Amino acid sequence: MIDAISFTNGTLRYLDQRFLPLQENYVETRSHSEAIDAIKTLAVRGAPLIGVAAGYTVILGLQSYNGTKEEFPAYFDNLIADVEASRPTAVNLFFATARMKEVYDRHFEQDSLDTLFNRMRDTATGIHDDEIANCDAMARHGVELIRRDLSDSLAKRKLTVLTHCNTGTLATGGSGTALGVIKHAWKEGLIEKVITAESRPLLQGLRLTAWELEQENIPFYSISDSSSAFLMQKGMIDFGIVGADRIAANGDTANKIGTCAHAISAHYHKIPFYIAAPVSTIDITIRNGDEIPIEERNADELRTIFGTQVATPTTPVINYAFDVTPNRFIRGIVTDKKAVVGDYDQQLKQLID
Amino acid sequence: MIDAISFTNGTLRYLDQRFLPLQENYVETRSHSEAIDAIKTLAVRGAPLIGVAAGYTVILGLQSYNGTKEEFPAYFDNLIADVEASRPTAVNLFFATARMKEVYDRHFEQDSLDTLFNRMRDTATGIHDDEIANCDAMARHGVELIRRDLSDSLAKRKLTVLTHCNTGTLATGGSGTALGVIKHAWKEGLIEKVITAESRPLLQGLRLTAWELEQENIPFYSISDSSSAFLMQKGMIDFGIVGADRIAANGDTANKIGTCAHAISAHYHKIPFYIAAPVSTIDITIRNGDEIPIEERNADELRTIFGTQVATPTTPVINYAFDVTPNRFIRGIVTDKKAVVGDYDQQLKQLID
Repeated sequence: MIDAISFTNGTLRYLDQRFLPLQENYVETRSHSEAIDAIKTLAVRGAPLIGVAAGYTVILGLQSYNGTKEEFPAYFDNLIADVEASRPTAVNLFFATARMKEVYDRHFEQDSLDTLFNRMRDTATGIHDDEIANCDAMARHGVELIRRDLSDSLAKRKLTVLTHCNTGTLATGGSGTALGVIKHAWKEGLIEKVITAESRPLLQGLRLTAWELEQENIPFYSISDSSSAFLMQKGMIDFGIVGADRIAANGDTANKIGTCAHAISAHYHKIPFYIAAPVSTIDITIRNGDEIPIEERNADELRTIFGTQVATPTTPVINYAFDVTPNRFIRGIVTDKKAVVGDYDQQLKQLID
Repeated sequence: MIDAISFTNGTLRYLDQRFLPLQENYVETRSHSEAIDAIKTLAVRGAPLIGVAAGYTVILGLQSYNGTKEEFPAYFDNLIADVEASRPTAVNLFFATARMKEVYDRHFEQDSLDTLFNRMRDTATGIHDDEIANCDAMARHGVELIRRDLSDSLAKRKLTVLTHCNTGTLATGGSGTALGVIKHAWKEGLIEKVITAESRPLLQGLRLTAWELEQENIPFYSISDSSSAFLMQKGMIDFGIVGADRIAANGDTANKIGTCAHAISAHYHKIPFYIAAPVSTIDITIRNGDEIPIEERNADELRTIFGTQVATPTTPVINYAFDVTPNRFIRGIVTDKKAVVGDYDQQLKQLID
């Protein structure tokens, strides 16, 4: 089991993901400033994992507090502000700090600082435990869906699955969303091998997913993103499963750039293509994909690779970080509550209610 | 005009493409060994351009000959063998040496060496001139097809075109195949801008096509290969045009890996997608795409980028260099003889006859 992040005896331990897969640097720290830097510098990344790290970072901050109870509110406010400033666009970070603030608001008056800190430590651990449980639930529902949906193929052979970007332990702190489903399906003997698309520009598939699969001894091949269509044409892919950044009420799904291209090719080749994401990813206030705002990121992500310049510094670039896959290309959506297939409008709404 | 290769007063001048776009190193040489090294090390690359370089390299070899007529046949055989060994899988190289050998075979007996060398110099120049003429003819037929096929859109605005890999002067020595059509269409005011897909693994789109477009002052943006589907979804691409490695009798087309994914997305979004390639690319002995052998290349092409390691040296990789685009995704094929649309079987055969 990969230890992306853990907290033991007051010490935070995390894997510095920046140099994976070439270097596996595990870092131990009792300093909340160092933990904040780890989030800032992307040593720790992946939306749910940032939330987990944020909870533990607050605990590190509490541990180093040696003032009075009267002085504590100002210290706590500063601490939360510092943590929230580490990655201001990461919503999971704010989910985590909100949970910590809620405990503080409810118990500060009557609790001693020791009792309060213990409560908050339990809350931080709870954020991590919830991620692990969500991943496990998605894995169960996902495997069930694959068994049902692909029973004809499974009667004949183990399957080859395509995935994109990184949606595993390195992203979630649990077994993963899409990659969690894949790992679970592999353990149950449904999967022969994984095809991991490299996921330009930042190569999370080539670097992180490949590394995770190697750690888990799951057979895999890395490919360039644009190879997936040809592999499908050659009958080398049985199904695809990826994560989600945001899911609209009708099932249209924003995910890492490249997802939509895989999904269109899969649709054309009659290959099932699934999304795996926690219910918290579904935003039913967004009616469809056209309403999902898509971040355009720095052109240097394309112009440089791992620090190496590959294009001139002035090369004009269009660099959308995500794309939107229309619901009709999505065979099913696996969540931590259940897996839904077809007619997303009704079913996604029910999941939220 | 970009000077990818030229031959003046007995000196070969070429642009060393390995460090483009970061360094523009023009090299002048009168040594055929140095010219052979340039082909070997990929300083000069692109199928047609290798053919042009091979012709000039033979001339450099003749210039440095100072033996008798009796000793010449052995020298010539060696020279041709050395040139052919520089890139043994490049068919255009063998087309070029075949043309040189034909002149030798026909004229060696009766010609003086001086007369023979002059004939062969004309032949080498002729190989280059033919490439330039082929590109110009493709450009004319391509622009005509675009004017006709996209007249509704052109009545409203200038167009945005997607291309893949490098098919310009750096590949052909002429204006290019697909990129030649684009340049010509831009000069005629039909094109607003070009979207150049980076073309992993070797990034010919990001490095070479972007550089050519900048030299020609044609507006462009570079994108990751897997972004094209999303840009089509957003209405940001009007048509696509790419080159071809080989075209089967039914129009199925092998081209740089990634082409098929663009073509499927274009088909789904009802965006015309064209091929531009000389008639010599059509192989009517191959009935369809299933019969085209597809080269798998070294895994390190994916594991490293511009010399920088991005994956572990043992990461398993599937690295097809080309893919096959089925004919039904191809709106038209532009050749140096004419542009053909639909029902490829009949029309391609007529082009060859």
